[in-house]
Amino acid sequence: MTSPAADLVITGCTALVHDEHEGIAFVEDAAIVVRDGMIESIGPAAETAVVATVERIDARGQIAMPGLINCHTHSPMVALRGIAEDMPAEEWFNDVIWPVESNLTAKDVELGARLACAEMIRGGVTCFADHYFSMEKVADVVAECGMRAHLGEAFFSSQGVQGREKSLEFALRHRGAAGGRITTALAPHAPYTVDDADLAATAELAREHGLPVHLHASESRDQTDNSLARHGVTPIEVLERTGLLGLEAGVLIAHGTGIVDRDLPVLERATGPVAVATAPRTYLRFAWPTTPVRALRRIGVPVGLATDGAASNNSLDVWESMALTALVQKSTEGDPRWLTSRQALHHATLQSARAVGLGERVGSLAPGRRADIVLVDLTGPHTQPVHDLAATLVHSARAADVRTTIVDGRVLMRDRELLTVDVPATVRELEERLAALTDRSHGGRIQDYDKPPE
Amino acid sequence: MTSPAADLVITGCTALVHDEHEGIAFVEDAAIVVRDGMIESIGPAAETAVVATVERIDARGQIAMPGLINCHTHSPMVALRGIAEDMPAEEWFNDVIWPVESNLTAKDVELGARLACAEMIRGGVTCFADHYFSMEKVADVVAECGMRAHLGEAFFSSQGVQGREKSLEFALRHRGAAGGRITTALAPHAPYTVDDADLAATAELAREHGLPVHLHASESRDQTDNSLARHGVTPIEVLERTGLLGLEAGVLIAHGTGIVDRDLPVLERATGPVAVATAPRTYLRFAWPTTPVRALRRIGVPVGLATDGAASNNSLDVWESMALTALVQKSTEGDPRWLTSRQALHHATLQSARAVGLGERVGSLAPGRRADIVLVDLTGPHTQPVHDLAATLVHSARAADVRTTIVDGRVLMRDRELLTVDVPATVRELEERLAALTDRSHGGRIQDYDKPPE
Repeated sequence: MTSPAADLVITGCTALVHDEHEGIAFVEDAAIVVRDGMIESIGPAAETAVVATVERIDARGQIAMPGLINCHTHSPMVALRGIAEDMPAEEWFNDVIWPVESNLTAKDVELGARLACAEMIRGGVTCFADHYFSMEKVADVVAECGMRAHLGEAFFSSQGVQGREKSLEFALRHRGAAGGRITTALAPHAPYTVDDADLAATAELAREHGLPVHLHASESRDQTDNSLARHGVTPIEVLERTGLLGLEAGVLIAHGTGIVDRDLPVLERATGPVAVATAPRTYLRFAWPTTPVRALRRIGVPVGLATDGAASNNSLDVWESMALTALVQKSTEGDPRWLTSRQALHHATLQSARAVGLGERVGSLAPGRRADIVLVDLTGPHTQPVHDLAATLVHSARAADVRTTIVDGRVLMRDRELLTVDVPATVRELEERLAALTDRSHGGRIQDYDKPPE
Repeated sequence: MTSPAADLVITGCTALVHDEHEGIAFVEDAAIVVRDGMIESIGPAAETAVVATVERIDARGQIAMPGLINCHTHSPMVALRGIAEDMPAEEWFNDVIWPVESNLTAKDVELGARLACAEMIRGGVTCFADHYFSMEKVADVVAECGMRAHLGEAFFSSQGVQGREKSLEFALRHRGAAGGRITTALAPHAPYTVDDADLAATAELAREHGLPVHLHASESRDQTDNSLARHGVTPIEVLERTGLLGLEAGVLIAHGTGIVDRDLPVLERATGPVAVATAPRTYLRFAWPTTPVRALRRIGVPVGLATDGAASNNSLDVWESMALTALVQKSTEGDPRWLTSRQALHHATLQSARAVGLGERVGSLAPGRRADIVLVDLTGPHTQPVHDLAATLVHSARAADVRTTIVDGRVLMRDRELLTVDVPATVRELEERLAALTDRSHGGRIQDYDKPPE
């Protein structure tokens, strides 16, 4: 009696798995069998039946772990990497980013997203939550390059009701696209650029269509203070009173560095799933506080890892976000024991998967999960010797140590070679467009920072 | 009329140079001519005479910049990478590091240093200031692997006068070794482990022999507070009263995160060169404050970049130290405009060279400087497009983007391939020794943290 051949078998690796309490564990000399884009089995090689397979990867000396998830980015903004440096957030938005974004074309978005996907695949990122404009182009790129993505078309109230309608139209049309690799969200920009009525209508649409919402909120302490001064409530309280904390499909809050003590009971009593995405490099750069990860964990809110866009982060390096989350949390809490390497890996895997609503599909290497797997080479001098594998992964390894990236069972990068994106061609085409994209002589901008709608 | 062939010509790169005000500038399509280990000429390719050469590197798409300098490390501690995680500094020293170091053999030091050199060469580091034990083994490894180094044999007062004498003997015997690539320093551990009489005698020896001193001081705010409580003076004031701030060859202070306001005039009136090495990752990990870089710059003290040892940093990644210095300084000072990418590159080049006493020899690409050069590939998706080359280098590029590392005109890594260190053999040999090295059952330790000698 023979079963049909598997699609992919990975052998010889040490596999990062989760125990029944969600703790990080490692299985040495593991074999992973992939069929129909799914992990069929994972375990010690000796226990895994020798199976016929279309493709086999010998991963000795490598760690197999769930692909990283970038829980909040604006992927096409890689086109603006380095364009606005060493300045406060207000100036960054008002003087550079929002003026430049008024030039943005669908073609810029397409090329930026393609370059971003190349960067993320090379950095071991298998899924990203994207929040931007002309998102149908990002959906096309995701379909073509093989990544998984959670996509939302951003809108401001200044666009009128059309903004919200366009976001809904995108979410409904692309939900489940690319063979199920694309999920979608409604994507209002933030409570300070989308008014309460618009947010409430968004919540209503989300409920009606079973969609999640992905938005910025409490990005900085200043935003919280401004909101309190002008409206008497925090941005998190705005989310509550507009119904965004009671969505069955959940809400994903980007940043939350301005979350204050009075917000914690609000988040705790939320009747729908709530998660926060943290992008620590952006906060250091803008001299913002960081996300209160410890307080959020105490009330059970998952905190996923993110980079934000490359115009603030300078890269889409989620591996670095993992290390920085651990380091900045230790420093901010004044507690070297807090946010251990194993906790950082929990944020990078299960919590990130839950943050983007994919907790049942990805985020761990286990039978029945989609086969989003990265293989990490630990033979380099900077990762040897290994006394504590979790620490080696979080604090010694780097994005460039990812050798192989697999999404839905398909190999997107093999031995550092990208198989689905042509980087030089993308860069060439993008470069021809940069002069027009970055022109600010028109004096316009798509929005004003720190001027909440009345 | 023909001149003899050059040893090495690098063409087609963009070269990072310094203008007359030490500002960072870039020369496009540059050619660099190297002869006898020295940069003979550097400039636009068109202006550089076509010269015959033994070796030629086509570096199109790459940046040529001065090799990075690790201004304070304990290179053999890579053997202990990851051994003591997620704990405060006192526990890290007393319960793990100092007990383990009582097992240390010269062979462990040799293997650790060799692995460390491999890691640093791969990360674009061409020179390191090392502070450890059995340093004659590190000197041998430096000679063999081709790096430049500034070496000091560490000592505690608990060793008696022999500690200091051994440090002097090492410094005199190895000064100028490895064809001039090795310089040396006296290396008392720190004011809390070396008493005032010992420090004063060290200063006297330094003066007599024209040697610099490299030591830890004001590592944390706690150390400063303890010193004030016990002795009524700060560690920096101890350096002054023991004569260490008046050495012709200078003093290199590791960390200085506990430098307080009253120390600034002390440092400013120093009659000999003073520099500080900053290792920001270590401070985040221990929840220490960071080095007061801005205050030190105001009084003209160079601040060089460092990693500390890999048992606290987890890597010897000076590239990361460069980015973290910029990010943590912005955050700590609450000023996004402070410590720009160009300032970070100034710390990484001229200030680091001065910190290790090599300001006239390395730290810039200019005729007459030693040819310590790294070539950095910016064609990867994470470093494209380039709007601001300094920002791309500091915040988007990574250590793994260094393709070629050259010291004294000799290529130590070409296209990521190490030419002077056998990593697998070193790791194999080291691994066999780890059980003995990390045994703590004997209950001994080489020193006590936070117990100053009376």
